[in-house]
This record gives sequence, C-alpha cells and structure tokens, in this order.
Amino acid sequence: MRCEIEVQSRSRAEFVDITPLVQDLVQRSGVQQGACTVFVPHTTAAVTCNENCDPSVQADILATLERLVPWRITGTPGSSYTHDEGNSAAHIKASLLGASQTLLVNGGRLALGTWQGLYLAEFDGPRHRRVLVRIMSDAE
Amino acid sequence: MRCEIEVQSRSRAEFVDITPLVQDLVQRSGVQQGACTVFVPHTTAAVTCNENCDPSVQADILATLERLVPWRITGTPGSSYTHDEGNSAAHIKASLLGASQTLLVNGGRLALGTWQGLYLAEFDGPRHRRVLVRIMSDAE
Amino acid sequence: MRCEIEVQSRSRAEFVDITPLVQDLVQRSGVQQGACTVFVPHTTAAVTCNENCDPSVQADILATLERLVPWRITGTPGSSYTHDEGNSAAHIKASLLGASQTLLVNGGRLALGTWQGLYLAEFDGPRHRRVLVRIMSDAE
Repeated sequence: MRCEIEVQSRSRAEFVDITPLVQDLVQRSGVQQGACTVFVPHTTAAVTCNENCDPSVQADILATLERLVPWRITGTPGSSYTHDEGNSAAHIKASLLGASQTLLVNGGRLALGTWQGLYLAEFDGPRHRRVLVRIMSDAE
Repeated sequence: MRCEIEVQSRSRAEFVDITPLVQDLVQRSGVQQGACTVFVPHTTAAVTCNENCDPSVQADILATLERLVPWRITGTPGSSYTHDEGNSAAHIKASLLGASQTLLVNGGRLALGTWQGLYLAEFDGPRHRRVLVRIMSDAE
Repeated sequence: MRCEIEVQSRSRAEFVDITPLVQDLVQRSGVQQGACTVFVPHTTAAVTCNENCDPSVQADILATLERLVPWRITGTPGSSYTHDEGNSAAHIKASLLGASQTLLVNGGRLALGTWQGLYLAEFDGPRHRRVLVRIMSDAE
C-alpha cells in the first residue's frame, strides 16, 4: 500500500516522532507480515530509529551532530562550506542518517523494540515535510 | 519469511559477524530472488556491511566512531551529554550507522561482495541482542 | 526484477549520479507501484540520496567527511589507523553513509523529491564499481 504522511517541524533541528502515524498506516493497510519502507523526499531531513522514552537522547544526538557538522552560513568567518544556500550542514547530516529506513511488520504492527521510535530528523526547519511510506506484504 | 536471530556481544563496542546466520536463514527460506531486510530492535546497536577479511578494519571503524563520539558518562567532567543513563554515545553511533539494512538475494543466497560481511554493531555491550530478519521473494 | 549497473569513478572521493540509470531500470521493469533497493557490493563505497542541483552540496559533503575521517596512510605520522591496506578512511565513510538505500516506486517511476538524486558515493577511487538493483512490485 502506498501512503504519504505530512509533518510540520518547529525548529531548525528537531526529531519529529512519526511512529504513531506510520503505525496507523500499517494497521489500515491490513498487512500482517511484511516490510514498511519510510522515505523522505527531501535533502535536508532524514529518517532514523532511536529512543522513544527520554527526550534527552534526541537532544544529545542533535547536539553531537551539530558539534561534528556545525551550521555555518557559507561565506561567513569560520565557514568552509561552498553551497550558496548556506544550509550545507543540513545536507551533510541528512546523508549521515539516511533518507530511508525499512522496518518490519509482524502481526499487523511495526516490529519496533520497546524503547524504539521512528523519527523524521529535521535539519533545516521549520518546514513542512512529506514522508513516503510503502507497506509490502510478504507473499508467504 | 519472518525470522529472528540472537547474538551475545562481549565488549562495549564490537562488530558481531551475523553473515553466516543470515545466510543460513536465506537458504532455509527457499527464496531464490528477492530482498532480505535486517533490523535491530535496539537503540544502542546498529547493522552495517563492511570488510569481512582483515579485522583491523572493524577496529579502525570503532576507534574512529569513538574519537568522533566519545563515551562520556553524563555529568562527569568533559561530558556534554544530558541523557542520564550515560550511554548517549551509543545512541548517537546507532543512528549514524542505522537500525536497518536491506540486502539482495540472488540464486538463493545473499548477494554480498567478496570482501563484504554483515555485522551487528554493538555500542553499549556486552548485551544479549535480537536481530529481526525478513526475506521477501520477488514475485517475478 | 534483478538488475545490475556498472559505473567508473574518476577520483578518490566522488559522488557518481546513478539516478538516470536506476530510473531507466525501473521503467524497463514495468513495475508501477513498489520499492527499489539499491545495494553496493563494495566496502569502500556507499549509496546516498542528496541534492541533484548544485554540485557544491556534494563537494561540501565530501569535504566534511574528509575533515571528520581524514585519509591517512596507516603507519605514517598522524595516522592512527591499523588496517594495512591504508584505506581505512574509505571503509569508515562507507559505513557512515551505508551500503543500501530503499527507494519507492510510484506510477512506474522512482519517487524522488524534486531536488533529490541517487548517488554512488566513492571513497577509494578511481575504481570500477557495481551497483545491484532490485525492483519489487507491490502485490496490491
């Protein structure tokens, strides 16, 4: 089943929890056993699975990515980026986390670990973002 | 076919070779052509494909990740992490490598390169870890 | 449908645009709705989706990866790598970006964002590289 969800990020860098939205699509698809691919059709956002309980984990991931790949406007002191839109850091973080994740579906639900959530990782917000979702049934 | 494997890591950070276990599941599934998605339902471990020959490659990957994202107990000198379980570095590394990889199946076997193995990347061990595997047949 | 494409990289580190080649395979497969997994059977190259318009984005990604994970021949001053082939940096970058990406197919075409392309990320070229592609149809 082909689906699409939309989210609105509120900050430049942020994890937006899309677990319930994708879980809902899986249940509506009726697929019992299969795979669910989530794909972000953007180049300054990504998808990632990580801790769903303590939000300090998300803050630590974002802060560490920022330390490694700092936001610097191209052409300003300290910046070595050349892309003239100025958001190179967001493009780099997007490739580090990746535009797609494939999750598994067991018993009609996403097979996530107890402490695991699925996130759109926003690196150049706030923006309106689309997330493409496809749920494929295992033929067996 | 839905499957699950279990591994026990022995160190805090380690690559556990799961290639033979997944290869065995592929063969037992009888799928000749298709895709094999491997998913780690944990937030401080990941899956990655890399060199299967010289173990110094794995050591260099782990050492470099540790240099970029050092293990620091939250609240101790030099730590800027805020997550109070103290294992933020493991969460960050897990998102950098990713919770899932999708491999291809050709001729009833994983289509890996000659020097390529599939690894559970442990970042907060030693722990008992599960790896979910789904092998989907290509309808053609 | 199982397919394979071949590319020749020209530099040590480079993004090779494989979007048109994979798009062509999708169209020839006749699959209208489904998923397309792209897998690199190499350990010093990766696949990633990112900006397809301004090539300075690719340059900024490669330069930042090089700053974080510098090319250093094992055994030379300043190198802490141990792998004696000397290309540890390429292996590390390959795991950071990942060996596989799964894209979606809608209406017989790759469902990419307007500014999004699909790239083989070369980290130890120039080399001849293979990219495995599988296009799976959604049973619905």
